[in-house]
Amino acid sequence: MTDGFFRSRWVDPPAGVEELDPAQLAPGFRAGGAYVGLKGEGTDVGLLVCDAEWVDSALVLTRNASAAAPVRVCRDVVDQAHVRAAVVQSGNANAETGEQGYADALAMCGRAAAALGLETAQVAVAETGVIGVPLPMDAVLPGIDEAAANLAADGGAVFSAAITTTDRWPKHCTLRAGGVTISAQAKGAGMIQPNMATMLCFVQTDAVVADPGAALRRAVDSSFNRITVDGQMSTNDTVLLQATGASGQPLPAGLLEAVLLQLAIEVVRDGEGTARAGRVEVTGAADQAEAERVARAIANSPLVKTALYGRDPNWGRIAQAAGAALVGADMDEIGADSIDATELGAETPEADIALRLGRGEARAHVYFADLGHEYVTLNAEYTT
Amino acid sequence: MTDGFFRSRWVDPPAGVEELDPAQLAPGFRAGGAYVGLKGEGTDVGLLVCDAEWVDSALVLTRNASAAAPVRVCRDVVDQAHVRAAVVQSGNANAETGEQGYADALAMCGRAAAALGLETAQVAVAETGVIGVPLPMDAVLPGIDEAAANLAADGGAVFSAAITTTDRWPKHCTLRAGGVTISAQAKGAGMIQPNMATMLCFVQTDAVVADPGAALRRAVDSSFNRITVDGQMSTNDTVLLQATGASGQPLPAGLLEAVLLQLAIEVVRDGEGTARAGRVEVTGAADQAEAERVARAIANSPLVKTALYGRDPNWGRIAQAAGAALVGADMDEIGADSIDATELGAETPEADIALRLGRGEARAHVYFADLGHEYVTLNAEYTT
Repeated sequence: MTDGFFRSRWVDPPAGVEELDPAQLAPGFRAGGAYVGLKGEGTDVGLLVCDAEWVDSALVLTRNASAAAPVRVCRDVVDQAHVRAAVVQSGNANAETGEQGYADALAMCGRAAAALGLETAQVAVAETGVIGVPLPMDAVLPGIDEAAANLAADGGAVFSAAITTTDRWPKHCTLRAGGVTISAQAKGAGMIQPNMATMLCFVQTDAVVADPGAALRRAVDSSFNRITVDGQMSTNDTVLLQATGASGQPLPAGLLEAVLLQLAIEVVRDGEGTARAGRVEVTGAADQAEAERVARAIANSPLVKTALYGRDPNWGRIAQAAGAALVGADMDEIGADSIDATELGAETPEADIALRLGRGEARAHVYFADLGHEYVTLNAEYTT
Repeated sequence: MTDGFFRSRWVDPPAGVEELDPAQLAPGFRAGGAYVGLKGEGTDVGLLVCDAEWVDSALVLTRNASAAAPVRVCRDVVDQAHVRAAVVQSGNANAETGEQGYADALAMCGRAAAALGLETAQVAVAETGVIGVPLPMDAVLPGIDEAAANLAADGGAVFSAAITTTDRWPKHCTLRAGGVTISAQAKGAGMIQPNMATMLCFVQTDAVVADPGAALRRAVDSSFNRITVDGQMSTNDTVLLQATGASGQPLPAGLLEAVLLQLAIEVVRDGEGTARAGRVEVTGAADQAEAERVARAIANSPLVKTALYGRDPNWGRIAQAAGAALVGADMDEIGADSIDATELGAETPEADIALRLGRGEARAHVYFADLGHEYVTLNAEYTT
């Protein structure tokens, strides 16, 4: 955090944002944690609670059809518009664990609710880690009690640690602007160890958010939905926004989007073995779907990703990936004059590339990670 | 070729196939070559001609919307049903080269036609190599004349060499069965050097092929269209089938399919830095499109590909890739009992994996390459 929280050139926060200690949660929120042995070291069970009796909230959950147990519990049981608390653990995804996994995730909500004097439906649950392994509930449940016993207003860093698996640096912030405070914690989507595929993000604020569902969806669409590490979608992805409204002030325009975009770019930069992040902008597409398809094809092309890693300004690979995404289109060749690929070869940690299609007015952009030896090492040399 | 041409367990050739020297082309065909300095070493210009005045033929061309000049010439100018000759060069893809590239590809057809006493429209052209670099026609045109001067019935190996770029071994065969002979030459799709993305394949036979377009399309659909090295589609992919009918006999059932499938698997196994090949079979999909989508998502998942490389029988990665491809589907979790991933961890050079979805009766399979350090090295450490 030496350069401040907003350190990507791709993020444009509103003016006058003050950075606070990220351990300090937004007013009205407390968090705690425990270590119960689910992962090698560090806090692995966490609890986040809003002390205000009324809270507006919204959840965005993975659309992976094989969603994990905690996601299913959030879908089925949790009152998503009024989430008071969240219980988390890192080390076990509780995914592909069948009925027992579902019962275990539900039991985590129940235990947290009991410890906090809430209803089960007021507690969201999120989990991340290895897939297909039963959750050791004998360890998890006492951990929830322990976390409930050490809840603190400066528990932001503890809660942030409780959701990380193999992130190389914490991804969190506490910011003040326009009379409101917003705090947020995220974990990376990089599968630094296999099956640790999950992106989790929690956002707390004392601002008034009139329609948290719409606000969160809009901010996620321009941040977490615009990044790709390796084109995979996790079974566990979860984003939770909670707003007490206690400040009586609205969120400054663009602040939520900026926070989530910076966190999303941190996730890309901390992807499994990632060295560099890229941003591809496609303009002149025939329609929005085409712009998205071409941008994602470029961002997910292993040839483009290795070029980003190897600092090779190889525009031919961009032309090929785009052409493959435009199968059936009646068009001329994509020439060098339609492509800006120079920054692929630059020394910058962030590289912008652009493609102009000349087929219409639609545009789209995607942020992506490179593909290097570290990715292969981390993903191939693991023993199940 | 120590174990014979049909050495994949996934290929089931008809009984009684006799293998001949792959240098020996099917009766009625001759080939020649030249070295003109387009690539580091080896024959780089080739010519293949059918001496019979009447030949039935079919071309399958890439659907990449940014198709290379030779593909556009084949589409626009060549009489695809009656291709007498093919002129090829390896070292330069003549892709993203604009109007000059188109004129150059057309001039190659014209020069070959003049040397052979044919019409320009009777000569197909195929090229492979770096993208975006003008073709040195001063070298190529005399090379075509030289190749025309050394045409020989045992020119199969020379022609095979003329289409390869960095293939580690030749991919060709000459086979005899049911009173007919079939010869074939292919080059790998692996981008062993960047931008050398092309898959080329030429097939010659003296069999009677009543509908070569339908026969070739069917065989390509079950072979080259079912493989993926890194999910990319080349600007230059071309498959040509030529049949003289001189034997008076039809092709034995399944022979063309078996030849193309073996060649396609060779292409996967010789992909850029590939160590192992996989085959994923998805059954129980709701419909054919879903089966295809899920199989390709698994085959192109970098996590599955690194697991194949690292011999990690990691079924959770298959579940995740499938779930991501089934976004929006109303279904249960994909559990371990739906997935066979054991062979990912085996010592075999070929690994079968299977996924049963239980959603319907549709099925699809895809052959794919692993993803290892060699891929990254070959694609990242190249300097343009």
